[in-house]
Formats: sequence, C-alpha cells, structure tokens
Amino acid sequence: MGGDHAPDAVIEGARRAWEKHGVEVILTGPAELLQETGLPFFAASEVVGMAEEPGQAIRRKKDSSLVRAAELVKANKAAAMVSAGNTGAAMAAALLRMGRLPGVARPAIATTLPVPGALPTVLLDAGANAECSASWLVQFAEMGSVFSRLHYGIERPRVGLLSIGEEAAKGTPLVKEAHALLSNVDNLNFIGNVEGRDLLSANVDVAVADGFTGNVALKALEGAVGFVSRSFIGAISADAEAKASLPSVMGALQPLLAELDPEAQGGAMLLGVDGLCVISHGSSSPWAIENALRMAHQLAEADMVGQMRAAVAAAS
Amino acid sequence: MGGDHAPDAVIEGARRAWEKHGVEVILTGPAELLQETGLPFFAASEVVGMAEEPGQAIRRKKDSSLVRAAELVKANKAAAMVSAGNTGAAMAAALLRMGRLPGVARPAIATTLPVPGALPTVLLDAGANAECSASWLVQFAEMGSVFSRLHYGIERPRVGLLSIGEEAAKGTPLVKEAHALLSNVDNLNFIGNVEGRDLLSANVDVAVADGFTGNVALKALEGAVGFVSRSFIGAISADAEAKASLPSVMGALQPLLAELDPEAQGGAMLLGVDGLCVISHGSSSPWAIENALRMAHQLAEADMVGQMRAAVAAAS
Repeated sequence: MGGDHAPDAVIEGARRAWEKHGVEVILTGPAELLQETGLPFFAASEVVGMAEEPGQAIRRKKDSSLVRAAELVKANKAAAMVSAGNTGAAMAAALLRMGRLPGVARPAIATTLPVPGALPTVLLDAGANAECSASWLVQFAEMGSVFSRLHYGIERPRVGLLSIGEEAAKGTPLVKEAHALLSNVDNLNFIGNVEGRDLLSANVDVAVADGFTGNVALKALEGAVGFVSRSFIGAISADAEAKASLPSVMGALQPLLAELDPEAQGGAMLLGVDGLCVISHGSSSPWAIENALRMAHQLAEADMVGQMRAAVAAAS
Repeated sequence: MGGDHAPDAVIEGARRAWEKHGVEVILTGPAELLQETGLPFFAASEVVGMAEEPGQAIRRKKDSSLVRAAELVKANKAAAMVSAGNTGAAMAAALLRMGRLPGVARPAIATTLPVPGALPTVLLDAGANAECSASWLVQFAEMGSVFSRLHYGIERPRVGLLSIGEEAAKGTPLVKEAHALLSNVDNLNFIGNVEGRDLLSANVDVAVADGFTGNVALKALEGAVGFVSRSFIGAISADAEAKASLPSVMGALQPLLAELDPEAQGGAMLLGVDGLCVISHGSSSPWAIENALRMAHQLAEADMVGQMRAAVAAAS
C-alpha cells in the first residue's frame, strides 16, 4: 500500500515480476482491494501514511500492510519484503519484527550506484542513521562487502571511506577515527578515503559514509544525473539541425539512460536485519517495483542474510 | 606558481584576462621566470607545494608567491588575489595576511553551481571548515546571501539548509539547531531544508552546509556532471547510426557543456576575509584562470568586501 502510485503501481509491478521473472509475490493490504488482483495476498486492514512518524506508526498500526509484510518474513512465509512506502516506517517494521542480526550495532541502507561500463558502486549508509560512530562505519564496510560480493560477484570489493581528500588526515573526527579503525581490519580490502567524484566511477566498489553524508551524496548524484540527462536532450531538441537526429541519438542513448535510471535497481537494501528488506522510492513505477522484487528474489536465492550473519559473526 | 599546470597556464590565463577583459594583473613568483612574460610582477622567491601542510607552509615561506599575493591585497596594491595552488595554503595566506572581517567567526568557501536556464546556486561552505557550529552556518547564510545579491543581482536570495529531508526534524543535531536559528533571522529569506537534488535546480539560490558535507556534495555533483556528459557523448559515438549526427549534436550541446564546465566559473570565493580571494582548481587551464580573474575583477568593482563587512556588522 506504500508509495505515491500505490496500490496500482505496486500491483502491476508484482504481476510483471511474477510473469516475467517467476517471482512469487504475496501482496499485503486490504482484502477487498487485493482479492480482485488474482494474486496471493495477506489481509492487512491498516495503512501507514508517507508522512507518519515511523516508530509510532509501526507500534500503533499492528495490522498495517508494512507490519504484516515484515511478519511474513519473520515467520518464514516470505523470503523478503519490498516496500515503496514510508522509508522510516519500512525500516522500523523490519527492525522491530525481524530483529537485528547478532552482533549488528545498526542496520544501514545500502544503495547501488550505476557505473556504465563497470560494476555498480554500493553506497552505505544512504540514510538510515543520520549520526554514526566510527565502529558502525566499520560494520557498514563489512556488510557492504558481503553485499557487493554476493550481488556482483566481486571477490575482494574495494572499500573506500567517503571524505574530502585522499589523505588520512582529511575529514571530520568521525572520518579520521573510522579511517584508523578500517586500516586495521584484516578481512577488508580498504583502499582509504574516496571523494564524491569517485562514487560514479570504477575506482571503488563499496563506499562507506554516515547516513547523513551518504544521503546528501546520493541525492546530489541522482539530481545531477537526471538534470544533465534532461538538459542534454533539451539542448538537442532545441537545435534546428541537431533535432533531426534525435531519433537515432535517443536510440543510442536508450541503454545508457535505462542503466542510469534509479528505477533500474528498483530499491535499496536494509542490511543488518534478520531478513531481507528492499526499500523502493516513493515515486516507484511498476517497472521499479518489478526490478525491486527481482532483486529481492536474487538476494534470497543467494542466501544474503545467512552470508551476512556469518560475516558479521566472523568479524566480531 | 600554484596548480598542476603552473606557471604556464596561470601566465597564459592572466594574459587573456588582460587582453580580453581589461583585467590588470600582477603576477607573483620568481623574478627570473616572470620578467620574460612582459606582465607586471612582484618577486617572490619561494613556492608552496600542493601537498604541503598549509599553516606551516605559510608561516615558514614568507617570501612565497601565495603570501606575497595576499600581502599585495592587504596593502591595497591589488584588489584581489587568485590562486590555483594548495587550497588550504591559499586560505591560510588570505586569513593570516588579510585577516577576518569584524564579526566573522570563520571564513567559508563559496562555490557557484551552474543551473542552465536559471541563475547559479551558491553553495557554502564547500570545504574550508570540516566541522562547524550552528551559528557559523547562520553566518555562512548571511555571507552567501550578500554574494548572491551582488554577483547575480538576486534581491532576496532564497537560502536553503542542506539536509536529508524537507522537514525541520530531519538531519543531524547540527542541522536541526541551524534550522531553528535560521528560522529566526529577520534579514534572511530562509526557505528551510533542501536536499542534494535541489543543488542543480532553480529551487534555491544559496545552499548552506558544513564544509565536509558541502565538499562531498560538490565533488559528487562535479563527478556526476562530467561522468554523464562523457557517457552520453561516448554512447552516441559508439552507435553507427547516431555517430553521423555527432557534429550537429556537439554543436547543439556546446553552450550547455561550456556552462556546466566547472572552469567556466574559474574559482570559488573565500568569504569572510578582509579582502578578495578566489581559489581555483589545481587542474585549472588558462581558460579557468581567465574566468577566475574576471570574476575577481567583477567582485572588486562591486565592492564585495565592503558590502560583506556592512552586512556582517548589521547582523551581529
């Protein structure tokens, strides 16, 4: 029931994920609405609004579609939950119903940044924790590495710490302390500080930041990619001579535009909880939901949570 | 003597600024090198390296090109200094030689983000202070507003606070405290929190952040703009059909590419010191230096420092 275009976009995305990719979906929400879809559903009478205070909403609305989805995962009746609703509430539902993996201090949101011509960069925390300690950042690095290895097959993902210069002495006290800690973790392939410009490049596989910095950087990147794409196409369309070539130019750009579209990934992962939780943009289209469900399916098949549990246990 | 292509790029940029825009330039650096240029110069025997520790370098190298440039401004023999050298050292030279404006807690680096189709967004602090207090952010807002008004003619610049959501409750304790303070400043047109995606948009005129967040966001934007531009042109070039239209497409894109190029602005301003200081990228080309000198010239003509002094005095 979450997202700006719910429930239609969610239902349509679920249908496509099943038909095209064989992802078996259980919808959660009002029975009278969902029984018309012909898809399996689990009845939930309440809905958490996009602007509700997350913790309170989850505690009060025990029969909401979000809480029921998290409970299905906890009860092993679903392999993953996917939501395009209130991000904070989706996190709270996952955290409160599934619980944290043993040893995890704080779950983090991991988002994947497309890098055409190379494997995506995993950025975390992209917004779960506005304030972080240095030891949390080390754990984010460990969780991000497991995700990068499982989802992209990178054997020893290069981990970078997001800062404002390559030198270890650059940045805030938090970043300097995290740099010192990360330098001493044996199982990580820590390559030092990286900068904002490295995020959309092949220079780093996992970029670690506190949730405030990570979210600002993510939205700056998304904004810039969209802005430049629109400006380019606008400039070509506005030029009498170049305009004629727009069909062939758009044909050439199509694969790139699709890859750069945040909806191609479908959603971000909440890492560190004892179950799979994919969080999609509120503005998700059916295509985004389809991709999010597909990603959840792949991560379930790869036993991401089991691997994460083992990695966190080994590190602590 | 600063920058990756010094002194040639700097000398050439100075020459162009003079010839094309009537900017009278005084070079600082080794006499034997500069007398060949035919341009006015002030002899300085030392050079601060790009990797030197800024404070120490400025204290020790009293006859460096950077220190001499700052001294020329202090002595009213130059209206502004421009450097493509070690950013920290340029800041330190300006701060130690020119001093702060009365009432300024900390100078900040203000950078201008191009927004094709609209006036640029001023982002500050873009890296001078990795850690900030909320009251400094308020002063950054005041200084950024003066800069936006004088440089872009915006009568009441809209000031946004860079955060991770529009709501006042979103962000770090620093951001929440700054939000409360900014809401109570009469002379500011504070519009609340803005997000990374708003920076390259017409939604805000002055975006305020601590220097760590501002620098991460700036580099993320610069990286994304460059990356998407290159990817687009690469995709068109690689397509047999679209390739034929590349000349007309590039012709259509040229004005946009020029506007998005960070070198079009030439440099960032150090606001809050008692004199004009423009800091250019280390990688600056002659064109970037030309534009930085032109900007410095415009700001001197507009008496930016005098206006800034009055605005800070009125606010404190």
